[in-house]
Amino acid sequence: MSAHALSDRRLWEPGRLVAFVDGVYAVALTLLVLDLKLPVGSVDLPSALRGMLPGFVVYLVAFGSIAGYWTIHHSSFHSVSRIDWRTVVFSLANLLFVTLYPLTASIVVAHPLEPLATVCLSANSLLYALSAWAIWSHAASDRQLLAADVDQRRLQQEARIMLGVAIILVLAIPLAYLSVYLAYADWILCAPGAAWVGGRRREGHPGRA
Amino acid sequence: MSAHALSDRRLWEPGRLVAFVDGVYAVALTLLVLDLKLPVGSVDLPSALRGMLPGFVVYLVAFGSIAGYWTIHHSSFHSVSRIDWRTVVFSLANLLFVTLYPLTASIVVAHPLEPLATVCLSANSLLYALSAWAIWSHAASDRQLLAADVDQRRLQQEARIMLGVAIILVLAIPLAYLSVYLAYADWILCAPGAAWVGGRRREGHPGRA
Amino acid sequence: MSAHALSDRRLWEPGRLVAFVDGVYAVALTLLVLDLKLPVGSVDLPSALRGMLPGFVVYLVAFGSIAGYWTIHHSSFHSVSRIDWRTVVFSLANLLFVTLYPLTASIVVAHPLEPLATVCLSANSLLYALSAWAIWSHAASDRQLLAADVDQRRLQQEARIMLGVAIILVLAIPLAYLSVYLAYADWILCAPGAAWVGGRRREGHPGRA
Amino acid sequence: MSAHALSDRRLWEPGRLVAFVDGVYAVALTLLVLDLKLPVGSVDLPSALRGMLPGFVVYLVAFGSIAGYWTIHHSSFHSVSRIDWRTVVFSLANLLFVTLYPLTASIVVAHPLEPLATVCLSANSLLYALSAWAIWSHAASDRQLLAADVDQRRLQQEARIMLGVAIILVLAIPLAYLSVYLAYADWILCAPGAAWVGGRRREGHPGRA
Repeated sequence: MSAHALSDRRLWEPGRLVAFVDGVYAVALTLLVLDLKLPVGSVDLPSALRGMLPGFVVYLVAFGSIAGYWTIHHSSFHSVSRIDWRTVVFSLANLLFVTLYPLTASIVVAHPLEPLATVCLSANSLLYALSAWAIWSHAASDRQLLAADVDQRRLQQEARIMLGVAIILVLAIPLAYLSVYLAYADWILCAPGAAWVGGRRREGHPGRA
Repeated sequence: MSAHALSDRRLWEPGRLVAFVDGVYAVALTLLVLDLKLPVGSVDLPSALRGMLPGFVVYLVAFGSIAGYWTIHHSSFHSVSRIDWRTVVFSLANLLFVTLYPLTASIVVAHPLEPLATVCLSANSLLYALSAWAIWSHAASDRQLLAADVDQRRLQQEARIMLGVAIILVLAIPLAYLSVYLAYADWILCAPGAAWVGGRRREGHPGRA
Repeated sequence: MSAHALSDRRLWEPGRLVAFVDGVYAVALTLLVLDLKLPVGSVDLPSALRGMLPGFVVYLVAFGSIAGYWTIHHSSFHSVSRIDWRTVVFSLANLLFVTLYPLTASIVVAHPLEPLATVCLSANSLLYALSAWAIWSHAASDRQLLAADVDQRRLQQEARIMLGVAIILVLAIPLAYLSVYLAYADWILCAPGAAWVGGRRREGHPGRA
Repeated sequence: MSAHALSDRRLWEPGRLVAFVDGVYAVALTLLVLDLKLPVGSVDLPSALRGMLPGFVVYLVAFGSIAGYWTIHHSSFHSVSRIDWRTVVFSLANLLFVTLYPLTASIVVAHPLEPLATVCLSANSLLYALSAWAIWSHAASDRQLLAADVDQRRLQQEARIMLGVAIILVLAIPLAYLSVYLAYADWILCAPGAAWVGGRRREGHPGRA
């Protein structure tokens, strides 16, 4: 493929995609609370609140996860100065797995000891991580999509970390059938990697919104 | 009508309309998941998940459609540098048919073999395509609304493709009464045309958000 | 009050308020569809669709009203270049009456011949119009809040039209107790005035987003 | 810690965080109305409306609170020109307590005379105030995060007011067990402080969005 063919590729500024993604994250984060309701006609408040506890745990886990996913997206897109058709498709797939998260989290809370329930959440998290990896490794592989001052190798390294998170999440699926607690332990293993990626991107780079 | 009368037309920058449209798309995309709920008090998880399958299919179809509509809007509005009163009205009509999509998709999933159900979805998609055609052909017909470097004939061609999609969707209505499978086949026919329009706009034009 | 005291007033660019208002309008517009659901377990699709008809009418009326309100806000805020504390308070009050609109519209559809139902919708529309009038007449009364090229007298005239709409809506309240049809007729009277304001602002002014 | 280490800190423009926060506030504000529904099949409108009254009170209180929180956020972020990782985390915690507000307000309306109900709302407001204090005192303590023309001591003073509000809210928890009316009185005490902070920031500073 010639340089000319490359320059004919459709490229856009990321502004509108980023705003759209932020809109979906913001709505997903806020809709979570709709599942938390005081039972109608409850006379005994303490027991009503106790009954809301599992839902409250889902709420906190899903809020924390979606908020965490957003911080990863927030810091990662600072490196991206152009998007193409694939970036859009990978980002929309990413949103699919963000919006499914509250459902799969609620399945685990309703059936905490059932391997199949943890498999639903593992699969969702795994597909989220894979779509995030696809966005990043696609951007990292193409100088045209990156801001001029971004270290391409560093972005590739971070894409690999996301892929590592995905691989750890795959393991949670067979492990759940040995013991669901192994799946829980596996999930906890992913947090430091994800946090590192969310927090460490573009050090010393105050200049771009 | 004199040039002076033309310059008296109300014209606005598209920024706020685009942000509003993106907001509606983002909310519509995220609300879809509200229809997917684990049945309360379900003891048997596998059968509960099986019972959620039709809803999950609606979810995927509606998510894919609205996400696809957004990519079409995203790429089409890169050509538009000014909007007038009609662009606003056509865009709001467009949003009406976007927000109805989850409802008509759910009707088809609940009654997959009923011609009337496919007519609801065909009519919705048809009206969506017509409103998209109205936005584009209106912009394409008026140099004042277009970015300086946009090829007007190309935009007109793409508006015609959207009209072609609408005409194909009209056919799905009578076809459904012969066989609902003909309506399904008709819908599948529309996808390549829509994808072409969504992906191919403004080639080699990285410069505008 | 001295000029110095005036310059000590807190003034902000309107960008963030406008984005927030657009967000609320976009969510309000999209939430409407949540009230439209195919009855669960409906076997007979034609009668199920007939049963959804009143809800569909609410949907169209509320969608049209909120979309129309947005177009009024969209065109009016092109004249505003600075906001103060009062603009924020009036705008938030405005949003209160926008978000209540689907509720009061649904009350009228459920009880179309009951005067009290029309009073709910009249009161809501009235308070909306008053809050819109407050935003505009406040901006029109203060050169500091207006873009340099805005005709202040024209904005004052448009604020008066909004006040006229409010006064017409007050009449709908007693009229409903003579006959609900008089209230309906009164509402229809308001549309041309509102449409005129929404469409006619800032003619020949393409330069600002 | 050396200057070099400081300059290696990840700093971002606040634009995207602000837009995200506004999105969550806008959705939270609009979702409130979903809890207000005319009872299905209600024949007697006056008594149906009376039955909706407690929900309407929750609606007004929650709408006013979230709208008020937004105005505080709106005016406070005009002082912030850079954000770091902590600002993001504190802001997301802040959003958690915003989105929980409708739930805790509804608990108080359902059980207005129960101390435990007021404790839920006090705790929610308290945690909101603490997260707002954390955002501000963090920004106020670091010249790198502030716009060049911001008076750092003034921002510190405002952060202290927010902390004062939090301390007053702590008192509402034991007071509720003496009498719930003391908790109500305590809440009312917080309003002037919060209003002062929301309205008084950055006087005479029209220049930034």
